[in-house]
Amino acid sequence: MINFNYSIPTKIFFGKDQVKVLPEQIKNYGSKVLIAYGGGSIKKMGLYDKVIELLKSNNISYWELPGIEPNPRVTSVRKGAELCKEHNIDLVLAVGGGSSIDCAKVIAAAANYEGDAWDLVLDPRKITKVTPVASILTLSATGSEMDAGAVITNLETNEKLGTGHPDMAPKFSILDPTYTFTVPKNQTAAGTADIMSHIFEVYFNLTEGAYLQNRMAEAMLKTCINYGRKAMDEPENYEARANLMWTSSLAINGLLTYGKATSWSVHPMEHELSAYYDITHGVGLAILTPAWMEYVLSDKTVDKFVEYGVNVWNIDSSKDKYEIAKEAINKTREFFKSLDIPMTLREVGIGEEKLEEMAKQAVRRGTLGNFRPLEAEDVLKIFKAAF
Amino acid sequence: MINFNYSIPTKIFFGKDQVKVLPEQIKNYGSKVLIAYGGGSIKKMGLYDKVIELLKSNNISYWELPGIEPNPRVTSVRKGAELCKEHNIDLVLAVGGGSSIDCAKVIAAAANYEGDAWDLVLDPRKITKVTPVASILTLSATGSEMDAGAVITNLETNEKLGTGHPDMAPKFSILDPTYTFTVPKNQTAAGTADIMSHIFEVYFNLTEGAYLQNRMAEAMLKTCINYGRKAMDEPENYEARANLMWTSSLAINGLLTYGKATSWSVHPMEHELSAYYDITHGVGLAILTPAWMEYVLSDKTVDKFVEYGVNVWNIDSSKDKYEIAKEAINKTREFFKSLDIPMTLREVGIGEEKLEEMAKQAVRRGTLGNFRPLEAEDVLKIFKAAF
Repeated sequence: MINFNYSIPTKIFFGKDQVKVLPEQIKNYGSKVLIAYGGGSIKKMGLYDKVIELLKSNNISYWELPGIEPNPRVTSVRKGAELCKEHNIDLVLAVGGGSSIDCAKVIAAAANYEGDAWDLVLDPRKITKVTPVASILTLSATGSEMDAGAVITNLETNEKLGTGHPDMAPKFSILDPTYTFTVPKNQTAAGTADIMSHIFEVYFNLTEGAYLQNRMAEAMLKTCINYGRKAMDEPENYEARANLMWTSSLAINGLLTYGKATSWSVHPMEHELSAYYDITHGVGLAILTPAWMEYVLSDKTVDKFVEYGVNVWNIDSSKDKYEIAKEAINKTREFFKSLDIPMTLREVGIGEEKLEEMAKQAVRRGTLGNFRPLEAEDVLKIFKAAF
Repeated sequence: MINFNYSIPTKIFFGKDQVKVLPEQIKNYGSKVLIAYGGGSIKKMGLYDKVIELLKSNNISYWELPGIEPNPRVTSVRKGAELCKEHNIDLVLAVGGGSSIDCAKVIAAAANYEGDAWDLVLDPRKITKVTPVASILTLSATGSEMDAGAVITNLETNEKLGTGHPDMAPKFSILDPTYTFTVPKNQTAAGTADIMSHIFEVYFNLTEGAYLQNRMAEAMLKTCINYGRKAMDEPENYEARANLMWTSSLAINGLLTYGKATSWSVHPMEHELSAYYDITHGVGLAILTPAWMEYVLSDKTVDKFVEYGVNVWNIDSSKDKYEIAKEAINKTREFFKSLDIPMTLREVGIGEEKLEEMAKQAVRRGTLGNFRPLEAEDVLKIFKAAF
């Protein structure tokens, strides 16, 4: 286990009707709010009206930034930052999924920055001051509600990049599982794949002695496996939605990473797919994951796959190591298939002709991952295996 | 899963040599510190000298409260509160185990209270303001380094009671596993039993749908089982000490409780043993736990024991329910025995003549627990079974 500095300051108000705390929580930071949200889903389910009613009845002024894209674009960030500057916004409130929250975070940073917002994505060190951010979550997936990172897309440059700053972590997030009752099956599936991928990114890791972190990661993986399909079949199953929602937050808030030297592999590969083809992030992750696992399986990594197979999939530990590893990878692929996720790049409309370019782009910030470090040629092979 | 409000604000600096952050962290709160500690162990291992050197070289003034008892007494709290008032202390720094930290917390509350410190133990609602608290941990056990509670003993009234306030949670805690290298075998064993008991108190619970919390609890139990004996046999095994230390914090910081309606059983029973006989808290817990488990096993609770037996002890799930449950309880008892803990009340010097009085005292604040609520007569039966 390596040294770490733990700080997870986001307050979480979890459960049915917790939105009632919104006004008093906002008032800790001021009285002028920018509401950032995506499409019409929060209006359809009545959440938008509820939020507006709570703000109005508590004399909180608000401005709105609707239309945030599923892969949030820097153009939206720029618009939001303008609104913040113009109206001296005290708090940026994201209402939605990870896209709205990620966008809100970078808006809150850009509101305190003189130059162009894209600078803050290219170089997080340029973030010095951040307007307080909060969120009301409507999709269990990215964990953005409890972490300090954000991923923003620039369609002009075909780039989808991560940025972050400790002060970008939401001051508070409201997690009401009933807000995810209306999430369609395919998005529930993609969200579950996203959560699992966050866990895989830090679980498949060679840091020694992080036993507790590994067992906790398995606890979270089991939760996804237990409830992923159930939430699709019974969209109003509170227990399933609640477990997925809380897992989405804990999977990436630091709990599984503290004590390990982690470096992600599958996310940066997938970001190229989304940047070039605007596909659903979680679907891209699900497609790449088993191909990546097969590619990185080696004498150096096989024990980790055995741990995974035995502890998560209950595979008989007396079997041959590689047999267990391969069975575990197959079970992973079968699980994603059981969520009706198309499991090839071809099926989601990705063309073979761009694979090489995307592979090169994926490593432009350097080698990917430390479980089995990946160069452009490795990424290309994984893309081809997943094609 | 029930609604919850999550807030775990304590910062943790975990790992070797993290004590170096002490001065800069203290300076966030002021420059006058009260150091609260127990016996000579922090002096023997050189930690005391290191702390003093860091304070002196950074112009931080300090006063000292040495001699805090293993079951910290209200008399120490009173002394500490006096020192705080007299010297306008900015931060109370506990250096030690849970006893020093618990004592520091109530000192920090009593420093801002006009009346007698014991009032704040009897009625936590009287705590209104708390001087910042921090800790340097030297024993993995109580989790006090990351929670908002404290247990104080009053030998005049034979009472050992818990109190708490959100502001009593340490602002930061330094967790360096090497500080536990010198913890003797019997205290390592007792600490491990204490950690496991904290997990049991919330794991054995009938709240439905807290699947994630249950799997995380099992992750932590497995960690204790994996490293408890190892830390005794190889006191300088960093991996073992680190895993136990981090588990001690996470077991009781709220992570396992949020989402459940919990009410503890074994701790309040044990508090009577310690209040009357000043025995080691963790030893009392280990003795009572299997007796308690056997007593509360019923048709209503057996499924929980099956979950425990199968997931934690890898007992064959195809066996009969009660067979699994009893095997799991036996494995628990055998595990504590393997830590060389004396497993009867008699062996630790407790007299049969006080059992009834202690049982009555245990329930004076009301029925214990909600897994199987316990009245005085139930507690007495458990005491007798453990005698």
